[in-house]
Amino acid sequence: MTSQISVVENGSVTLPKGFQAGATYAGLRTYSEDKRDLGILFSEFPASAAASFSTNRILSPSVTTSKKHISSGRARAIVANSGCANTCVGQAGFTDALEMTALTGAKLNVSGEEVLVCSTGIIGVELPMGLIRTGIKAVSLSPEGGNSFARAILTTDSVTKEAAVSFPVGGKTVHLAGCAKGSGMIHPNMATMLSFLTTDVAMESGLLQAALKRAVDVSFNMISIDGDSSTNDTVIILANGAAGAPEVRPDTPEAALFQEALVQVCVGLAKAIVRDGEGATKLFEVLVEGARSPDDARVAARSISSSMLVKTAVHGNDPNWGRLMMALGKSGADVEEPRISLFINDVCIMEGGLPIPFFKDAIVATMKESDVRFRILLGLGDATATAWGCDLSDAYVVINSAYTT
Amino acid sequence: MTSQISVVENGSVTLPKGFQAGATYAGLRTYSEDKRDLGILFSEFPASAAASFSTNRILSPSVTTSKKHISSGRARAIVANSGCANTCVGQAGFTDALEMTALTGAKLNVSGEEVLVCSTGIIGVELPMGLIRTGIKAVSLSPEGGNSFARAILTTDSVTKEAAVSFPVGGKTVHLAGCAKGSGMIHPNMATMLSFLTTDVAMESGLLQAALKRAVDVSFNMISIDGDSSTNDTVIILANGAAGAPEVRPDTPEAALFQEALVQVCVGLAKAIVRDGEGATKLFEVLVEGARSPDDARVAARSISSSMLVKTAVHGNDPNWGRLMMALGKSGADVEEPRISLFINDVCIMEGGLPIPFFKDAIVATMKESDVRFRILLGLGDATATAWGCDLSDAYVVINSAYTT
Repeated sequence: MTSQISVVENGSVTLPKGFQAGATYAGLRTYSEDKRDLGILFSEFPASAAASFSTNRILSPSVTTSKKHISSGRARAIVANSGCANTCVGQAGFTDALEMTALTGAKLNVSGEEVLVCSTGIIGVELPMGLIRTGIKAVSLSPEGGNSFARAILTTDSVTKEAAVSFPVGGKTVHLAGCAKGSGMIHPNMATMLSFLTTDVAMESGLLQAALKRAVDVSFNMISIDGDSSTNDTVIILANGAAGAPEVRPDTPEAALFQEALVQVCVGLAKAIVRDGEGATKLFEVLVEGARSPDDARVAARSISSSMLVKTAVHGNDPNWGRLMMALGKSGADVEEPRISLFINDVCIMEGGLPIPFFKDAIVATMKESDVRFRILLGLGDATATAWGCDLSDAYVVINSAYTT
Repeated sequence: MTSQISVVENGSVTLPKGFQAGATYAGLRTYSEDKRDLGILFSEFPASAAASFSTNRILSPSVTTSKKHISSGRARAIVANSGCANTCVGQAGFTDALEMTALTGAKLNVSGEEVLVCSTGIIGVELPMGLIRTGIKAVSLSPEGGNSFARAILTTDSVTKEAAVSFPVGGKTVHLAGCAKGSGMIHPNMATMLSFLTTDVAMESGLLQAALKRAVDVSFNMISIDGDSSTNDTVIILANGAAGAPEVRPDTPEAALFQEALVQVCVGLAKAIVRDGEGATKLFEVLVEGARSPDDARVAARSISSSMLVKTAVHGNDPNWGRLMMALGKSGADVEEPRISLFINDVCIMEGGLPIPFFKDAIVATMKESDVRFRILLGLGDATATAWGCDLSDAYVVINSAYTT
């Protein structure tokens, strides 16, 4: 991590200059104190925009609408609601998503086509547009509204997920921040859950899209909570140039620095999502090294991080490395058993394909920490990848056995 | 189901003529009354043999040895142990697997190369060959030993899984029977868990292999308990012709009847495995109809049957059909939302992509049965597929949080 990038504690999406946000309780979810369920994020200046959307074949019309609006490479605002996914509701979903963008545009004095829309919550229920219309009017925007916006997008999440950094570009300090939601229906095969990123860097949308794709691939696409993938997953970044720094152009040190900052923020948000996984009590990291190809490294790491048997073993502080080998083998990645070495929390428990006698109690004790690390050396090449998962607890089952009931 | 095929209640792998079996407690697992952990299945006559093995890249040397021995298309015996997977133990695994086949061959007066070997249990522990040598000697074979053999292959299974049928070939009654084990590490991407099938039909091994592949594809390959896949999965069928009926040849009505009987036995065993899934309290069936291609139908059915969110919803008797749509969409199968209809236990809850108001309490009540049926009409073509899954309960987590500890 370069020292040029500074973490900004408690930074929100309104940390970068020229962004305002706000949220309200519109009545889309059951009420509790401080609850928000409808939020708006606004760039005071025209902004380059890039996004990564769900690859699920069943898509929310909110996603379809945002896809269409962002095709220009520019956007001014995002309106997001929780409590209702606006999915599998027929033509009404398209009408409602479009109206949400139009109403938000009218409120902010920009075109509806400059507004993106995101919905998350129950599938198969139409958006209660009466509540949404009133709610959009009620949202009060301010440069301090980032945290409130981050709260509005939560569903079964227990905490908000926010990250922010600053770094220098052309003698100016610029900012990059993001928030995210998601604690179920999360799996690496997908783009991801909801995440909104803002920056006051000036950058053309093609470069922004390329940087976002690279960052999403090593962060949100490398986490798994339950192997399931939502119909509404969306990551959006807006870059409005309000810091007044020179434009960041491709193949420059500034572009590399921006990429590094973006990866750092996205990995931070992704890990925060895993840590808040439904029923999760701990986070584990799977580092695969020495793979023959980057693809092999990725599929191997993700196969292990998403294995239910690995996840339950982590929950039980059980160094059951046979399950790591099983998940590695089923991944389809090229492996040669006699070359494989395994580490649990930096203790080597298998070398050259052969188990090493280890003090089980000692490993069990280290696994009781809130973070567990698995490191797998394949000994076949140079490629590496890191994936993150959470343990699978009985609480996950309890949460998901009664979600709509 | 053709009336020509009769189910034989309580039939075991020694129901077909010319098969003997037996099992013993060799001390490979903790003792309990009636426990068996080492079994031998023997054909008194030379038999055609076919098999389907794990596609995991990490394989047990027991699998590797069986693969080699069955390449002749013939086999006389199977030796199987539970308690130890003989996996990830280096060269010793190959030596031990080979010795098991040699010892069994010597006992039965056949060549070791005519013996197949299967192991299931903990990964990373060498076979206790002292116990195995004594155990193989101690096994007493008889034409009534089928049930005892079925018990010897169990690990976390709570019940034995056996199925048997009879049908006519050329005026003679022939038999087909099988047993299986498996209640964790089971997922459709794999060949399957352990299953042993016997028949007194006479059939050349090429036809036998083709029939087995087709049967495995619609049975064991369509079940999922936890999405994980073992390093030891094996299905073997032996056909010894002892019924004295004419040989079954390709493209005859008898071949079709044999295929039907084999599918029936394999589906029966596969469903028994799911029903006994670790922590499972119920079985659910996913029938996908109207898919554009057979592959689409299969991936759609399996995506739904293996979704953790669907499995937890089934556990909670929750008609949360949004999760079915999510799992359908993420499968990658071709779908058009406005053409999709969904049924839960024969009640239509979505038609033409639009939810139908339904009495939730009524559906919840029907879902409390031990069997739940999901039927999804895609409206795009003629292809269909059926997959089976079990619910995901907190008991699964408890079982798998402390397996080796």
